[in-house]
Amino acid sequence: MATVDDLTPFVGTWRGRGQGEYPTIEPFEYTEELVVAPVPGRPVLTWTSRTRDPEGNPRHAESGFLRPTPDGVEMVVAHSFGIVEVAFGTVEGVRLDLDSLSLTGTPSAKDVAAVRRRYAVDGDELGYEIAMAAVGVTLTHHLRATLARS
Amino acid sequence: MATVDDLTPFVGTWRGRGQGEYPTIEPFEYTEELVVAPVPGRPVLTWTSRTRDPEGNPRHAESGFLRPTPDGVEMVVAHSFGIVEVAFGTVEGVRLDLDSLSLTGTPSAKDVAAVRRRYAVDGDELGYEIAMAAVGVTLTHHLRATLARS
Repeated sequence: MATVDDLTPFVGTWRGRGQGEYPTIEPFEYTEELVVAPVPGRPVLTWTSRTRDPEGNPRHAESGFLRPTPDGVEMVVAHSFGIVEVAFGTVEGVRLDLDSLSLTGTPSAKDVAAVRRRYAVDGDELGYEIAMAAVGVTLTHHLRATLARS
Repeated sequence: MATVDDLTPFVGTWRGRGQGEYPTIEPFEYTEELVVAPVPGRPVLTWTSRTRDPEGNPRHAESGFLRPTPDGVEMVVAHSFGIVEVAFGTVEGVRLDLDSLSLTGTPSAKDVAAVRRRYAVDGDELGYEIAMAAVGVTLTHHLRATLARS
């Protein structure tokens, strides 16, 4: 069971820094702006993330929606690298856990098989860890960031 | 073959009115704001649409990306009603045609089987027609709107 109100701890504009790694690439750092916003009168929240490299150039972007339902929290999100993600999980207090149900790509997109998202709010900080199974690698830690409420 | 420059005619903030119909529902009217924007230095454009009923209450929303590739135009989009869409098509001058390759829903979402999008710019107007196959109905006209560049 989840409601829009249950997601209130995550509502805001969050900015900060993250670190990425994966067996197939060089480790990297990034900055991020994540905006989570309710939609007045609708049982959904918008979800928009933009990351930049340390030089300020746009890197990854994703946008979509969180949908609390009687069973939990649904997420639908489009990624700028040509993948769409359907995920499902739970919100419990200041913790939001989402696991992909499906990932589908455009003809030119890299193959992504699974995404695991773990978010936690601590005061005015939002931390997360994201693991990914992609390009033949099993579910492996990929991203970690700490963002501050703006 | 499509490039970011080929999609320039569609870049902008577009606002206007539309009409919806479908065999399973009552006809309806809506207002819309569609924002198509390039991402500096990246081969993608953001795509964000928000519609409202005549009373101004939020209705449908979708957000994602257009990706021009050597083969055509890819679209990845998340819909607020719990569907993600992967589409592919062509841009030719002021016409953008996109047909869904896949539609995937969350557990609570209605079933959508296909979406056909036809957009055309005429001066400072953007018109479109969208057909949809959903809830057991074959591909059928669903939405028509004319938006003006803001």
